[in-house]
Amino acid sequence: MIKINENYLKLQASYLFSTVAKKISAFSEKNPGREIIRLGIGDATRALPPACIAAFHRAVDEMADDATFRGYGPEQGYLFLREKIAENDFAARGAEVNADEIFISDGAKCDTGNFQEILSTDISIAIPDPVYPVYVDTNVMAGRTGAAVNGRFENLIYMECTDQNDYIPKIPEEPVDLVYLCFPNNPTGATITKEALGQWVDWATKNKALILYDAAYEAFIRDDAMVKSIYEIPGARKVAVEFRSFSKTAGFTGTRCAFTVVPKECMAYDAAGTAHSLHSLWNRRHSTKFNGVSYPVQRAAEAVYTPQGKKEAAQIIAGYMTNADRIRREMDDLGYAYVGGQHSPYVWIDAKTDSWNLFDRLLNEAGVVCTPGAGFGTCGTRHIRLSAFNSHQNVETAMNRIREAMKGS
Amino acid sequence: MIKINENYLKLQASYLFSTVAKKISAFSEKNPGREIIRLGIGDATRALPPACIAAFHRAVDEMADDATFRGYGPEQGYLFLREKIAENDFAARGAEVNADEIFISDGAKCDTGNFQEILSTDISIAIPDPVYPVYVDTNVMAGRTGAAVNGRFENLIYMECTDQNDYIPKIPEEPVDLVYLCFPNNPTGATITKEALGQWVDWATKNKALILYDAAYEAFIRDDAMVKSIYEIPGARKVAVEFRSFSKTAGFTGTRCAFTVVPKECMAYDAAGTAHSLHSLWNRRHSTKFNGVSYPVQRAAEAVYTPQGKKEAAQIIAGYMTNADRIRREMDDLGYAYVGGQHSPYVWIDAKTDSWNLFDRLLNEAGVVCTPGAGFGTCGTRHIRLSAFNSHQNVETAMNRIREAMKGS
Repeated sequence: MIKINENYLKLQASYLFSTVAKKISAFSEKNPGREIIRLGIGDATRALPPACIAAFHRAVDEMADDATFRGYGPEQGYLFLREKIAENDFAARGAEVNADEIFISDGAKCDTGNFQEILSTDISIAIPDPVYPVYVDTNVMAGRTGAAVNGRFENLIYMECTDQNDYIPKIPEEPVDLVYLCFPNNPTGATITKEALGQWVDWATKNKALILYDAAYEAFIRDDAMVKSIYEIPGARKVAVEFRSFSKTAGFTGTRCAFTVVPKECMAYDAAGTAHSLHSLWNRRHSTKFNGVSYPVQRAAEAVYTPQGKKEAAQIIAGYMTNADRIRREMDDLGYAYVGGQHSPYVWIDAKTDSWNLFDRLLNEAGVVCTPGAGFGTCGTRHIRLSAFNSHQNVETAMNRIREAMKGS
Repeated sequence: MIKINENYLKLQASYLFSTVAKKISAFSEKNPGREIIRLGIGDATRALPPACIAAFHRAVDEMADDATFRGYGPEQGYLFLREKIAENDFAARGAEVNADEIFISDGAKCDTGNFQEILSTDISIAIPDPVYPVYVDTNVMAGRTGAAVNGRFENLIYMECTDQNDYIPKIPEEPVDLVYLCFPNNPTGATITKEALGQWVDWATKNKALILYDAAYEAFIRDDAMVKSIYEIPGARKVAVEFRSFSKTAGFTGTRCAFTVVPKECMAYDAAGTAHSLHSLWNRRHSTKFNGVSYPVQRAAEAVYTPQGKKEAAQIIAGYMTNADRIRREMDDLGYAYVGGQHSPYVWIDAKTDSWNLFDRLLNEAGVVCTPGAGFGTCGTRHIRLSAFNSHQNVETAMNRIREAMKGS
């Protein structure tokens, strides 16, 4: 008899997005013709940089001719892209990352989800709360947790991120082998200082722990003195894996390209205490269960690193950040406390009530969709997330409508 | 202390391709200027169909304009593509597959590798020998096997495919919960009759077993009366999952698009014997660890189903099959027994000696690269695989050189 992986039965059906969709439908029915503005999901809305489009077309043309056609590429990605990344994203910031330590993939979601596969199921894991749900769900699927009790899984250590600690998780006191960190954070938009991140690296070094560092939003950091890569911290190469993406950097959410950095000296251990290179294990996993990213997509991603591509991508990011500034201004005026939005496209707002209450109010009174914080964990139940991914005009209209709705509240 | 998944240590390093590469280098050094013809790896060499190129360009242009730009698509793939597949690949052949039972992905390698994740680690598995290594390695990684002993993993049931059984695996007599089948087969090129496949479906039904059916090479079947999809067999919807790919059908090896069919009535069981829908489990896995295929790539794949795209893809396949015919003719003339090549781009040749011996001879005397069967399992140690993926001229030259080299042997 064929049997299922019963760990899947522990997963709680996420009703968040279906509930959001139902509420939107109900609103539309009651308010025909009323335009809804979506500031919920964190999805790019602006066109790809023209430099990427041009490179994309050129590569498609190469696929049209037997002489320039490309079949299977290296599972790890083409060197032309890996070298540009090493040079621009790391060397230029004084961080040591070699091209062959970079694994090109089709998404940071996939990479953050898949990476746990090469680790033992018998490890203790700490995750932030609120959290990007993929970190949790993929560990549940792999059998590293117990059942869900009151919205939290047994055997996971939840690091609460609240206004009490400026939304930066505290280093756990109990033994932890693996920690997920994400800065600028999704969903809170909080950023970490170089000093605080250095403390995490020291802690991991001392405890032979591993940090999975999700830097998918690093492009939104506007202060060049702030830390963008964990490899800017001395010692991080031994204890940290970093996830990056072109999704938010250059609008690749529908085009699909990302990468993971696994430094060669980053080690994990077998039961006998012998060290093994995670680079070699990940390479085995990546080349066995993945077959490389579409060639034209890799060429489009490469173009992000041309002088024109850099300029265009920066303009797109700046456009979203103008929106984030507009959202923050409105929240200031309305007297809502928040974090994020300064070096992140997300603003995490204290709802002063249950997150669904404020969601309902913004939808029904302003026709604006946000994401209720409850979808990101227990610590989100009294927050909402507003996303800066939209046009200036839509954000302006949304803020004016929210102001009108909240007046006198 | 962070610990590794020790199952990875059981994997044997595959020296096949690195050994092949080393031998080629050595040959090139000794024979400067001698052109090597590669009939080893099964990788498309001909340009994408012009219909796909045109659709690809149009979709890239959509990404260049905010008004038509696409961000995140459905993880399961766009309906425009899933509907074309349901209609053309299944309904047109009398097989019932609904669009929402089709999961678009970036490769059949990924899908055949990932699918086992939703199954218990406590199941018995049968795989053919010779075999596509991904079926084995991904189960080793998941901990379903013991150690490798003499090239075979403990706890796996190997179904030997030899000239004794026309390279069609025999239904196992011992209890088996999961079986991997691949037709037209990689590496042998063997095909299965509808009747024989029907026996597998009956067996699976009776034993509540699951068949993972890899049909990545179905487009090479030249006889329309032969079975292309397992869903042409009554009852298969309850016991089989099918993997398909655009890689070989339309030259997408470097463009990346494939799909998996999970019928809604296909069930697996928990320890208590309760049935669970694999569709719903796979949907959870797919949407948690994957984020959809690149939008322009999906548009390019959709174009395979236009009248022009069908004609062009068929021409490409016919071109490769002309090569396969040429290879078979040469083997007939030289007196080598083989299977495949009739409805498959692969010809699996009895080497009459150790597979590496014939590999060395073809390389050193004819400058032709094949794949030594040893890379596919114990039953391959006296076979080689020749692939039809190349230009007519290269295959013609290769066959003439092989004839010259083998003369009088």
